[in-house]
Amino acid sequence: MMPTTKILLDESHIPTHWYNVIADMPNPPAPYLGPDGKPITPDMMTNIFAPDLVAQEMSTERWIPIPQEVRDIYHLWRPSPLYRAHRLEAALGTPAKIYYKYEGVSPAGSHKPNSAVAQAYYNKIAGIKRLSTETGAGQWGSALSLAGSMFGLEVRVYMVKVSYQQKPFRRSMMETWGAEVLASPTTLTQSGRQALAKDPECPGSLGIAISEAVEEAASRKDTNYTLGSVLNHVLLHQTIIGQETRKQLELVGDYPDVVFAPCGGGSNVGGIMFPFLADKAAGKQIRLVPVEPTSCPTLTRGHYAYDYGDSVGLTPLMLMYTLGHDFVPPSIHAGGLRYHGDSALVSQLCKEGILEAMAVPQLATFKAGILFAKAEGIVPAPESNHAIQAVIDEALLCKTTGEPKTILFTLSGHGHFDMVAYDKYLNGELTDQDYPEADLQAALHNLPKVEGVATRN
Amino acid sequence: MMPTTKILLDESHIPTHWYNVIADMPNPPAPYLGPDGKPITPDMMTNIFAPDLVAQEMSTERWIPIPQEVRDIYHLWRPSPLYRAHRLEAALGTPAKIYYKYEGVSPAGSHKPNSAVAQAYYNKIAGIKRLSTETGAGQWGSALSLAGSMFGLEVRVYMVKVSYQQKPFRRSMMETWGAEVLASPTTLTQSGRQALAKDPECPGSLGIAISEAVEEAASRKDTNYTLGSVLNHVLLHQTIIGQETRKQLELVGDYPDVVFAPCGGGSNVGGIMFPFLADKAAGKQIRLVPVEPTSCPTLTRGHYAYDYGDSVGLTPLMLMYTLGHDFVPPSIHAGGLRYHGDSALVSQLCKEGILEAMAVPQLATFKAGILFAKAEGIVPAPESNHAIQAVIDEALLCKTTGEPKTILFTLSGHGHFDMVAYDKYLNGELTDQDYPEADLQAALHNLPKVEGVATRN
Repeated sequence: MMPTTKILLDESHIPTHWYNVIADMPNPPAPYLGPDGKPITPDMMTNIFAPDLVAQEMSTERWIPIPQEVRDIYHLWRPSPLYRAHRLEAALGTPAKIYYKYEGVSPAGSHKPNSAVAQAYYNKIAGIKRLSTETGAGQWGSALSLAGSMFGLEVRVYMVKVSYQQKPFRRSMMETWGAEVLASPTTLTQSGRQALAKDPECPGSLGIAISEAVEEAASRKDTNYTLGSVLNHVLLHQTIIGQETRKQLELVGDYPDVVFAPCGGGSNVGGIMFPFLADKAAGKQIRLVPVEPTSCPTLTRGHYAYDYGDSVGLTPLMLMYTLGHDFVPPSIHAGGLRYHGDSALVSQLCKEGILEAMAVPQLATFKAGILFAKAEGIVPAPESNHAIQAVIDEALLCKTTGEPKTILFTLSGHGHFDMVAYDKYLNGELTDQDYPEADLQAALHNLPKVEGVATRN
Repeated sequence: MMPTTKILLDESHIPTHWYNVIADMPNPPAPYLGPDGKPITPDMMTNIFAPDLVAQEMSTERWIPIPQEVRDIYHLWRPSPLYRAHRLEAALGTPAKIYYKYEGVSPAGSHKPNSAVAQAYYNKIAGIKRLSTETGAGQWGSALSLAGSMFGLEVRVYMVKVSYQQKPFRRSMMETWGAEVLASPTTLTQSGRQALAKDPECPGSLGIAISEAVEEAASRKDTNYTLGSVLNHVLLHQTIIGQETRKQLELVGDYPDVVFAPCGGGSNVGGIMFPFLADKAAGKQIRLVPVEPTSCPTLTRGHYAYDYGDSVGLTPLMLMYTLGHDFVPPSIHAGGLRYHGDSALVSQLCKEGILEAMAVPQLATFKAGILFAKAEGIVPAPESNHAIQAVIDEALLCKTTGEPKTILFTLSGHGHFDMVAYDKYLNGELTDQDYPEADLQAALHNLPKVEGVATRN
């Protein structure tokens, strides 16, 4: 049998600061633009976001202190463990060393509470009483419901109707923490009523749910909006993952040759990879690889252009890789990765060749996840399986070349609420959903026109 | 906000020995009896159990060494954290200090792998290739499937048919780890065929599933049977919970006035309470309180008598508290607590007044679990909610009396696979299932006759 290497840190190692990658990027990030094509100002954001979060969104400071109240909550599950995957290495027969940072230890079961807790805190101290948000698969909605209960804030979650019906257990979990969960589109918002007027049987989409949550926050003084990925401040909060991981690897005298993370909106990528970026800029050999689904290939097939964050066009325009804001990705079981756009920071770093994205198909990810579960015990979330598939390919390549590389990845969450997907895979009912090429091309031709800045991939 | 007190131990503190409470019991345990009323011999058990496990079942040694191979697997999630429930204390306004030992950190989500890993190991080194077992709610089946995948053993799980149909996600998890899961009753065993002949629509029961799994193991040389509670060796393996907890409390200079644990077959009770028993014998003031459901009140309403462990009568006779082997408890959502009997060790210690059992009704346990989830973040398993309800009552009593007692309990697992129960509770669809008094009385009058030893409560 293999020994277990589980690298733990004590509470004194919960990071005291979030790391702001903007301070170390070769080029400043492109500004968000308003409907008039002009850069938006902080004032325009504080209508729906807490002032401290807007300040973080725009900050160029390298280190931003984490309030003690937030660190106290983090300590419920942090520092999270870093594992050496001895048993997976043995199963693959690879000379590579594989490490995984396990974020499923949070009460919500993923890395999402790292930002949810911070967002709830800053809204609490800003005097806000209610938070609105959207959720697809339910990971972010769960995280915010948990954070709301910790700080005594009301939480309303617009949950995409098809998920609301198909994933009742994530909904029950949010309700257990006291949140109100609505099947979107609702009749409570203009955006929802519009969608229902077009199609009374509308199954909902993340785009519509975002519009509903933003509209509610914009119309109520006691309510702010929160988002679980994409934005700079969300990725900022997640950098505690990579900071802890660096320390844990130091304890065993190791450093990664390559880092993989699943990529939907970019919060995992920012979390694990940004804290290694300065090393890379300083000449260190390290590959940083976001892994996305081939069915929603934003970074690998999208255009680098200004686009909306939602389908309706209520958000600012962001310069990012996008499949077009009206592209609807096929239904796959890694719901957290079904987003037409991506974080502007992750996009820019890909554009500049600092991150190197790749895409993997659905069936391979479940095969990889099951191999991982049998070897390492933990049943991964379908999102995490994307990283695992990339890791296995890299480790098998090392087997061929004989290189004993050090491979690191984020196991972003457990799959306890995704067993229906595993069940379908085991019963041979899953396929490699391909996107309709014609729809993708149509969506890409429907990007908003922004004078002099829209560029092509 | 409250600080978080999470007391961690490093891997050097994973216990090196299991603690055998028999060495410190005031009276030796009553022997198991065969069908002829005579004590059974080790030889009679090795037909379906690994020899090392039979030796542990019968051992009177105080300390039994844990093989390094087992400790290596334990280290995937152990030592498990001990938390001080500051936020729950504040929510209750109690002067009491509340600690909980969280066993939901295992990949299977409960304390069950503590014994499953040990049982799989001893069967592996005995040359066994396959393990059979039964599962109701799925906690034990999951744990054994995980352990089987770690040691390369085939696992077949007879899952009570009604659970198989109503809880497909636990089943999918077992299959993800490579186990074969069958809806019991099956047509593969005599016990199953008998049940189906009586009732082709038979929804199954834990008793029938045990009979099927035992029958399979008895009929195949390459296959052994495993059980997730009740037996001495299972409780023995769980004592690592209490051993770790003692060390963790020492680190913060504390000691419990009272300990609560949910009680079905007794593995939680043995795990957390047995390591405190010698202190109590030495005069230390400590209350040890198993908590069971009022709908299946084995310890509080059963008879102390020799009875079978299964419904069909294939197991040895054990002197224990029992509701009668043909008593079928009402369907409640804490499936792990629906057992007609109880561990012989736990029963004897209750009979002798060393443990003091109590029972709580279902609705109160869900109310308690939701209060806990909102305060502490973790959504508990319905079984664990029984302990939480007792803890809350004790803490509120402390509020009345002003006593700053130290209360400890086992949070035996998370509720990720039990959200349908929370959903029903939140929708007002749950009731306090009462057992049919007539059925209970009938079952109690149907206890097997054993010359000179059957006693009444």
